[in-house]
Amino acid sequence: MKAYIEMNREELLEERARLTEKFEEIKGRKLQLDMSRGKPSYKQLELSNGMMDVLASDSYFNDETGTDCRNYGVLSGIPEAKKLMGAMSEVGPEDMIIFGNSSLNIMFDTVSRSFTHGVCGCTPWCKLDKVKFLCPVPGYDRHFRITEYFGIEMINIPMSETGPDMDLVEQYVNHDPAVKGIWCVPKYSNPQGYSYSDETVRRFAALTPAAEDFRIYWDNAYSIHHLYEDPEDQDVILELLDECRKAGHPDIVFKFISTSKVSFPGSGLAAVAASPKNLEDIRKHLMVQTIGHDKMNQLRHVRFFGNLPNMKEHMHRHAAILRPKFQTVLNTLDTELGGLGIGSWTRPRGGYFISFDAMEGCAKAIVAKCAEAGVKLTPAGATYPYGRDPEDKNIRIAPSYPPAKELKKAADVFVTSVKLVSVDKLLEKM
Amino acid sequence: MKAYIEMNREELLEERARLTEKFEEIKGRKLQLDMSRGKPSYKQLELSNGMMDVLASDSYFNDETGTDCRNYGVLSGIPEAKKLMGAMSEVGPEDMIIFGNSSLNIMFDTVSRSFTHGVCGCTPWCKLDKVKFLCPVPGYDRHFRITEYFGIEMINIPMSETGPDMDLVEQYVNHDPAVKGIWCVPKYSNPQGYSYSDETVRRFAALTPAAEDFRIYWDNAYSIHHLYEDPEDQDVILELLDECRKAGHPDIVFKFISTSKVSFPGSGLAAVAASPKNLEDIRKHLMVQTIGHDKMNQLRHVRFFGNLPNMKEHMHRHAAILRPKFQTVLNTLDTELGGLGIGSWTRPRGGYFISFDAMEGCAKAIVAKCAEAGVKLTPAGATYPYGRDPEDKNIRIAPSYPPAKELKKAADVFVTSVKLVSVDKLLEKM
Repeated sequence: MKAYIEMNREELLEERARLTEKFEEIKGRKLQLDMSRGKPSYKQLELSNGMMDVLASDSYFNDETGTDCRNYGVLSGIPEAKKLMGAMSEVGPEDMIIFGNSSLNIMFDTVSRSFTHGVCGCTPWCKLDKVKFLCPVPGYDRHFRITEYFGIEMINIPMSETGPDMDLVEQYVNHDPAVKGIWCVPKYSNPQGYSYSDETVRRFAALTPAAEDFRIYWDNAYSIHHLYEDPEDQDVILELLDECRKAGHPDIVFKFISTSKVSFPGSGLAAVAASPKNLEDIRKHLMVQTIGHDKMNQLRHVRFFGNLPNMKEHMHRHAAILRPKFQTVLNTLDTELGGLGIGSWTRPRGGYFISFDAMEGCAKAIVAKCAEAGVKLTPAGATYPYGRDPEDKNIRIAPSYPPAKELKKAADVFVTSVKLVSVDKLLEKM
Repeated sequence: MKAYIEMNREELLEERARLTEKFEEIKGRKLQLDMSRGKPSYKQLELSNGMMDVLASDSYFNDETGTDCRNYGVLSGIPEAKKLMGAMSEVGPEDMIIFGNSSLNIMFDTVSRSFTHGVCGCTPWCKLDKVKFLCPVPGYDRHFRITEYFGIEMINIPMSETGPDMDLVEQYVNHDPAVKGIWCVPKYSNPQGYSYSDETVRRFAALTPAAEDFRIYWDNAYSIHHLYEDPEDQDVILELLDECRKAGHPDIVFKFISTSKVSFPGSGLAAVAASPKNLEDIRKHLMVQTIGHDKMNQLRHVRFFGNLPNMKEHMHRHAAILRPKFQTVLNTLDTELGGLGIGSWTRPRGGYFISFDAMEGCAKAIVAKCAEAGVKLTPAGATYPYGRDPEDKNIRIAPSYPPAKELKKAADVFVTSVKLVSVDKLLEKM
C-alpha cells in the first residue's frame, strides 16, 4: 500500500471513508479489552497454582537455620529466600534484603526514606531546595509518579536501543549536585523492551556523581522475563552491582527485583540488592518501620521454585503464553501499518510491552479512538514525567492480559485507530 | 514473711546471703529463656496451621465480586477481608483499608506520610519547627521508636487503670497546636493490660484539638485477645470511631488492627479504620506507594476464619494456652513477693503482658540480674519514650513465649532477682 504521507487529498479522503466504515463496524462488536497494564493473563496465573500446595498444615515451617517462619523475627529475609532472589538478581545472598510483596513499594520507601532521613547520613531531601531525578523517556509511569509525589524535579533523558543517552546522564550526574537519582529499567525496558548495552552499564558504573547521595534506581523488573527459550534470542545485560564495585563506586546503585510476574502479582516477593553500606542504612530504617516481612510467603516461594534453574523453567511456560501474543500484535502492526509512514514500533525479546510511536500529535487521539471502540490502552503521555509527552506520539501497548483470541481483535482496533487518526492529521495539515 | 522495708540491716544481710545462694544455684541451671517480647509460643502457632490448607492449587481464587486474587488490582482490600477485619475492629467494611502483614508498618507509614505530605492537606510536619506526641507511660516501645525516629518530641502522660490522665491529655491536645498525636493501646494495654474506661473513651472523642491535623493513634492490638472465656471476665471498651462521630469529630482517630496474634505473626493481615476523609487521604498516598497488598493472604484469612464468631472461638484456644502462663507468673509474684513491699504488678484479663513496678532505681539492675541467670527481659526503660524510665522502676513481663514448664523457672529467676536487687538497694540506703 502507498505510504499515507505520499497520498494526495483525494486519496486520503477516500482512505478515510474506508477506515470510518471499518471503524463503525468494529465499534459494533462492542469489545471490552484491556491492553493498558502489564498484567499477566489467567493462563499465566494458573502456572503458579502449585505454590498453594507447597505449604500445608503438616508442613515443616522452619527455615534452614531452624527459625520458625510462622513467628516474629528475621528482619531482612530468611537465608534461602536471599539465595533464591539473589540468584535471580545475579548477586550473592549477602547482598540482599527481602521485603514484602511489591518492589514499587520498596522504591517508594527508598525515596521516602531519603526525603525524611537522607541517604547514608546525607542531608534529608526535605531540607534541600531542589532535588532532581533523571527520567529516561519513554519510561514507567509508576516511577515518575513516585518522584512527582515527592516534589522532585524530573528531567527527561532520551532512550535509544542501547539505553539512556549516557552523554547527557554523565553531564547531569557528574556536575549537578541536585541530581539524586535516575530511574532505570535496564532489561526489556518499560515500554520499549530495550536492554542496556555493556557500554551503557559500564558508563553507569563509572559515574562520579556530584552528589554523594546520588543513586541509580535499577529496577530490574524483567530480569528473567524472556520471550524466547533459545539463549541466542535472549537479551543479556552486565550485572551493575559488580560493575560498580569494580569501578570503585559500590554505593551508587539500588537494584530492585520482584517475582510479581513470576509467581502471583501482588502476592510475590520483592527485594533489594545493594552494597553493605546501603543495606546497613536500609536496615536501620526497616527496624523502626516493621517487625519483619511475610516469611511464610518467602518459604512458599523457596519451596515452590527451589532454585533459579527451576524458576527459569517456569519462565519458559510464561513465555509460551506471552510469545504468541506479542507476535499477534507485531504481525498486525507489520501487516497493517508497515510502509505507511505513520508509526514505528519496537520488537522486544522479553518484558511486557511494545512501544509505539505515532506521528507527532496523534497519540492522545489514537488512545481515545481505541477507547471508543472498547479497547483500553495506557493513557497517552503516561510514559513521560508529569504525563506530558512533548510530542504526543508515544503509546505503550501491553499485550499480556487479553486472551489470545481476543488480542487479534484488539490489535485490529489499534491499527484502524492509528490509520484513522493519522489520515485526519495529514488532512488537517493540508 | 516480713516486708523488706521493715527489716533491719542484719535481717537484710541474712536475706541477701540466702538469696545469693539461691541465685547461684539458679545460675547453675544454665537457663535460656525469653520473656522479652509478646511472641506467641509454638503451641499457639500450631493453632493456625489449618490456614495453610484453605488454599490449594485447585481452589477458587476469586473474591466475592469475581476479582481474581492472584492478579494485580484492588488497592484497599477485598470486600470479604474488609468485612472480617471490620467486624474485628467493630466498624463497617466501608470504614476499612486492608494493608500488608504489619500494623506497625501502617503506623510508621502514617507518621511518615504526615511528615512528608501532611494530614488531609495540612502542612507537612517536616516543614514545622516542632511536632509533639503524647505518650501514655509506661507504653509500647515500638510506638515510641517511630516518633523518635521522626524527631517528634514525646511527652509522658501517666497511665492509670482507667487509661491515660485525661486532664493532662485535654490540656495538651486542646491548647497546644504542636501536639499532633497520641499513642494509645486502649484495650489490655501494653504493658499493663489496662482497658480504657467508657469515660476515658468519651473524653477522647470529645477532644477539640488545637491542631487540625491532630490524630489519636488507636492501636487496638488486643481487641479480641481475652484470657478468659466468660464474658464477665472480659474487658469491653467503647468503640472510638463511632463515639467520635457522635461527638462530631469523626476525623480525629486512626484505628489500627492486625491478626498478628490471631493467625501467624508476620504473616497476618493488618488494617486501618478511619473516617471517609481520612481514608481518602490514605488512599491517595497508597496509590503511589503500591499497586496493592497481598490479596491471596486476605483470601486465606477469610476462608480460614469465615467470620468473627469463629475468630473468637479461635481466640479461646489461644487463651487456653496463655491463661496458665499468666497464672504461673502471677502466682509466683503473689507467693514470692506478696507483702514484701518491694514491687507491684498488674493482673491483666487479656493481652500479652504483665507490668511490674519495682522499687525506684531497681529496674535496670533486675533486668541485668535476670540476664545473668539466662532469662531475657525487655530492656528496662523500653516502656518509656527515649528508653528513659525517670524512676527506673517499670519492667514489662511477657509470659507468652516460653513453654509452660519452663515458665515457672523463668518466674523464679525473676522474683529472686527482684528480691536480691531490692535488698541491695535497701542496704545501700542505710
